[in-house]
Amino acid sequence: MLSEADGYALLRQYDVPAPAFEIVQSPEDAAKAAASIGYPVVMKIVSPQIIHKSDAGGVIVGVKDDAAAKEAFDKIVANAKNYNPDAEIKGVIIEEMAKPGLELIVGGKIDPAFGRVLTFGLGGTMVEFHKDVGIRLLPAEDDELRSLIREIKGYTLIKGYRGDAPKDEEFLFQVLKNACRFFEDNENVVEFDINPLRLYEKGGCAVDARVIVQDEPVVLPPHYDPEKIVPLDYYKPRSVAVIGASDDKTKMGYAAFHNLLQFPGEVYPVNNKRSEIQGVKCYPSVGDIPGPVDMVVITVPAQLVPGIMDECGKKGVKMAVVITAGFKEMNEEGKALEERMVAIARSYGVRIVGPNCLGLILPPYKLDTTYVATSPLPGDIAFISQSGAIANAVVGISLSEGSEMGYSEVVSVGNQCDLDFLDYMSYAARDPHTKSIILYIEEIKNGVAFMEMAREVTKIKPIVAIKAGSSKRGQAAAASHTGSLSGAYEVYMEAFRKCGVVPAKTLEGAFQIAKILGGLKKPLTGKRAVVITNAGGFAVLSNDYAETWGIDICDLPQEVIDEMDTFLPPFWNKNNPIDLLGDADEARFRGVYDVLCKNPDLWDIAILVNFPNKVLSPEQVGQVIIDYQKKTDNLLVGCFVGGDSLKPGVDLLTEHNIPVFEELEFTYRVLGHLTWTTQ
Amino acid sequence: MLSEADGYALLRQYDVPAPAFEIVQSPEDAAKAAASIGYPVVMKIVSPQIIHKSDAGGVIVGVKDDAAAKEAFDKIVANAKNYNPDAEIKGVIIEEMAKPGLELIVGGKIDPAFGRVLTFGLGGTMVEFHKDVGIRLLPAEDDELRSLIREIKGYTLIKGYRGDAPKDEEFLFQVLKNACRFFEDNENVVEFDINPLRLYEKGGCAVDARVIVQDEPVVLPPHYDPEKIVPLDYYKPRSVAVIGASDDKTKMGYAAFHNLLQFPGEVYPVNNKRSEIQGVKCYPSVGDIPGPVDMVVITVPAQLVPGIMDECGKKGVKMAVVITAGFKEMNEEGKALEERMVAIARSYGVRIVGPNCLGLILPPYKLDTTYVATSPLPGDIAFISQSGAIANAVVGISLSEGSEMGYSEVVSVGNQCDLDFLDYMSYAARDPHTKSIILYIEEIKNGVAFMEMAREVTKIKPIVAIKAGSSKRGQAAAASHTGSLSGAYEVYMEAFRKCGVVPAKTLEGAFQIAKILGGLKKPLTGKRAVVITNAGGFAVLSNDYAETWGIDICDLPQEVIDEMDTFLPPFWNKNNPIDLLGDADEARFRGVYDVLCKNPDLWDIAILVNFPNKVLSPEQVGQVIIDYQKKTDNLLVGCFVGGDSLKPGVDLLTEHNIPVFEELEFTYRVLGHLTWTTQ
Repeated sequence: MLSEADGYALLRQYDVPAPAFEIVQSPEDAAKAAASIGYPVVMKIVSPQIIHKSDAGGVIVGVKDDAAAKEAFDKIVANAKNYNPDAEIKGVIIEEMAKPGLELIVGGKIDPAFGRVLTFGLGGTMVEFHKDVGIRLLPAEDDELRSLIREIKGYTLIKGYRGDAPKDEEFLFQVLKNACRFFEDNENVVEFDINPLRLYEKGGCAVDARVIVQDEPVVLPPHYDPEKIVPLDYYKPRSVAVIGASDDKTKMGYAAFHNLLQFPGEVYPVNNKRSEIQGVKCYPSVGDIPGPVDMVVITVPAQLVPGIMDECGKKGVKMAVVITAGFKEMNEEGKALEERMVAIARSYGVRIVGPNCLGLILPPYKLDTTYVATSPLPGDIAFISQSGAIANAVVGISLSEGSEMGYSEVVSVGNQCDLDFLDYMSYAARDPHTKSIILYIEEIKNGVAFMEMAREVTKIKPIVAIKAGSSKRGQAAAASHTGSLSGAYEVYMEAFRKCGVVPAKTLEGAFQIAKILGGLKKPLTGKRAVVITNAGGFAVLSNDYAETWGIDICDLPQEVIDEMDTFLPPFWNKNNPIDLLGDADEARFRGVYDVLCKNPDLWDIAILVNFPNKVLSPEQVGQVIIDYQKKTDNLLVGCFVGGDSLKPGVDLLTEHNIPVFEELEFTYRVLGHLTWTTQ
Repeated sequence: MLSEADGYALLRQYDVPAPAFEIVQSPEDAAKAAASIGYPVVMKIVSPQIIHKSDAGGVIVGVKDDAAAKEAFDKIVANAKNYNPDAEIKGVIIEEMAKPGLELIVGGKIDPAFGRVLTFGLGGTMVEFHKDVGIRLLPAEDDELRSLIREIKGYTLIKGYRGDAPKDEEFLFQVLKNACRFFEDNENVVEFDINPLRLYEKGGCAVDARVIVQDEPVVLPPHYDPEKIVPLDYYKPRSVAVIGASDDKTKMGYAAFHNLLQFPGEVYPVNNKRSEIQGVKCYPSVGDIPGPVDMVVITVPAQLVPGIMDECGKKGVKMAVVITAGFKEMNEEGKALEERMVAIARSYGVRIVGPNCLGLILPPYKLDTTYVATSPLPGDIAFISQSGAIANAVVGISLSEGSEMGYSEVVSVGNQCDLDFLDYMSYAARDPHTKSIILYIEEIKNGVAFMEMAREVTKIKPIVAIKAGSSKRGQAAAASHTGSLSGAYEVYMEAFRKCGVVPAKTLEGAFQIAKILGGLKKPLTGKRAVVITNAGGFAVLSNDYAETWGIDICDLPQEVIDEMDTFLPPFWNKNNPIDLLGDADEARFRGVYDVLCKNPDLWDIAILVNFPNKVLSPEQVGQVIIDYQKKTDNLLVGCFVGGDSLKPGVDLLTEHNIPVFEELEFTYRVLGHLTWTTQ
């Protein structure tokens, strides 16, 4: 750790104001230095062994004159010696006493996956009480730093709390910018914090600084390397062999081979104990297969896999899907086995999916290398999962009545010994069937490369991500599950924001978000919602849920209200949510949409909330939405709450690719996640 | 408002320490008083017209000696005159300067529905920034006040932040207790706050106090009056007439009469333009019906209702369900009409459901007075709704495939001009068919009576409540919808806690909570959960969702882990969630439950999370839970994530009344709400 004096000196080089100071060795010099700095001063012990100076009685503030300075010197040194007799005392630092101000913290740390992280928030001794800190990943743009200032809760104190004069936000921005420059320039700095940074109406001052350096420059996570990405043709094998194929229905090798029977290319079972499996001629080893083998699926025990990988390499296999578990995730022995397998594969240029995974499914090509009970339908969502069970569950859900949904890619990434999130995302980005991408992530190791790729991919296709492990226990569980420790959840969220990935909390939410984002007529740039309903109770609940999930049920200008008033019954609520009352007919709904479509700049999303009633059939209501979606590029959404009797309306909207929900709170939850980065 | 001096004096009577003070009229007296109190002192203007003394330059702190005191007197008076030339200056108050301490706020206010509310939280000038305030409804028990202290975020500061000595929690408790006594004794006090109350390691001091009084004692909401509750036999009519019955399927009078055709007693259509309706002889008026009429359903326009009520009274009708809208909720005219109708009904002793409602359904008696499309099934849940649309929607949902559910009572309370929440709750409490009660509430007017009744009811049957209108917009919308303003959401939540009502946020959640609470083998007194799964990903997510919703995934003692280790594979995670791995067979699950059932005091809830896999069928997994629920009174829950293929397991558990979910996050959300008041 740098001394306070060295820290101040370094910060000053980066235009971060710090107090004037001098380090002295005697009471006399203390008085002299204090007088030249100007009373009152703060005096603190300088000792590498004493980190918590206050606890050691090593800090005296408000020293007022020469006599007090001399006395303070002796007292501080005595206290320090008393506190730690072995501490090397390098002197006493005499500091200008900065005037009181709003106490903030500016810091930096290295995230093992995502690199340099800037932290900013309310500081002072109450920093751990407030827990009001935001972060940015470096390098950060100016507008990211400006928005960082505004996003902490304490921003109300910066703006001027209860009539106070506003603090110097521009100065603060410059400090953040300079802190970033400082962190990036000084590659040996592993961690720093300025706490407190006192902010005034004009300017500010760093009152304490801690800078931790190491001898070697910090090694940052590697950048994205396009060379490492698997070429698209690797995913389009002419032939697939299943090593460990079986006739025993309880074995993975049964289902894995069974699911491949639909594959239009060649499929070969490999099993040295059988001559035929599931009616197909079986080979004792991959080397015995007469034709070329582009892809293999491996389900045999882990100990056998390195040997098999060697055979695959010799055979010219391009891609091996290793379903087998018992590698890195199990123990050290498994880890060594995995490394051996990878080394062999690499020597031949064989690329590996897994191990310890469910496998890979590309439904548009009828390629299913997994042991799922039933192959998913083809569709336009790519689902990339760091959990086999979750991939299995979502395939099951997607095949259920009423929630039919198709995929362009389903993959369980397993241990990612070779192919990783980047590869599968890159595949989805290049694949013409994919409209949107969902990730279930427990841990990303190469965060920097992930962000570089995600930033490119999100320009053309939306990515929705569930990051598991937000809880303390969750982080521990992820570690035991994948064999390595997750980074902080907040760093992931900031990384997602920075590269345009939309975070989701649940599978159900992720799929809805992906579907909506994949079908938007124009990008969603705001979250101003208009709610149109014939159900007063759902109007009230809409406000609650909207507030909870950050959707802005916007005020409508008086002229819009007035226009609606010309055709709505006299006692309508004249407000948003627009309550058309229980006896609302089609004309009322159409009238409201007419007005909205004439004023598309006033809102971003219109949500129609419907319930079973005698006046309007669900098809009628659905058709209204369909008709008006043709007239606006804003997002129209249906929410039909009331069970099966509304199903015809739900199905009609689904057919027309208009988002429709059957639960009110879920509607706002999804929309809230969808619009999380908009103003 | 009382003067600061009067406020201090009053507080002192209730043993709340306040600074020594004296009010003076001259600089000389100021110096004299200050010297007798002891320097340093605080000096403040005393003027009824100057509320914000600091803004007026009317406060000087740290006055150190006689000279300063004299000077301060003149300055304060001059500033005050300058600030408001018309202010009556009653002198300057000289106060002992209390030493710095942790600044808290203790206050009281009157809630129009629930009566006296005590507030407590972090205080000082940052009170609006922290927004860290809890409440209790009076009268409050000692343990409620003690838990109030512990539930604010700032409790960490009271306990002793970062190694600080703890503050005097016992003194604080006494202050809260005394503040309650003060508020209850002084019936003219409408609002007060002590801000800051400075809390020290020993004792504390009220440094400022604001007490607002009125001339008359505060009128509190009325207590529960058992006399007003409708006798049970009113709900069991021998005969029902529908006034406004119709053959026109678009009219409410059609469906209302149609739904009554299943009623086993007499049903009469009343319509002066027809001789027969839906095949039943029709009468021109209720008076013309030959036999007795116990209940009527009224669907005719509002203007006609008072006249009809008079006829009903004459006929001896006991209960009138007034579906018709256009009363208080519409405008002043409607309000007058409603009052006339009520007055007439009261004069005859006719009780009214509604008006402006969907009506009342008692499925076990085949009594459906509403215009829902299809009558709900009989069952054990009473659903009492302040929204007709929501009642309609839940009936629809309950009839849908896969979510079949029955009711003992469904009622839309409408304007509650006579019968209100209390009546319908009382009915459900006395009704033998009802196991649990769900309320959808926008506003409760008689909160005190509501709590008194709810406290009794929850002793025998669980009540789950959705309180709509938590948002600012929601409160406004509720006002326009029901014609009156909601109380603060937090007051409702505290009222619920106090009388054992479980709050829910969504309809889906409310039903799950009601079902689980209705079927518990013993009351749920804790929220320690054990998660048992064969899906590693869901183990990770379980931690996240549990943390979000306040479920405590508890550590298991080493001896329990060791016992499980004897039969689980060597590389299981040895932690809770218990990840039995993808190849888990029935024996692993049974083994874990065996250990848990031997140690029932270690946990409250066991959640089995299952997904589609080849090793275990969903029925097998379901049967394991069923078998072990017989061996423990703790709560066992299933969560089967993966769609239709798991349905047989879901159905099996449902048949055995074991809670089962199909969504992981929802599982924890429901359990979190369910256990919200447990430790």
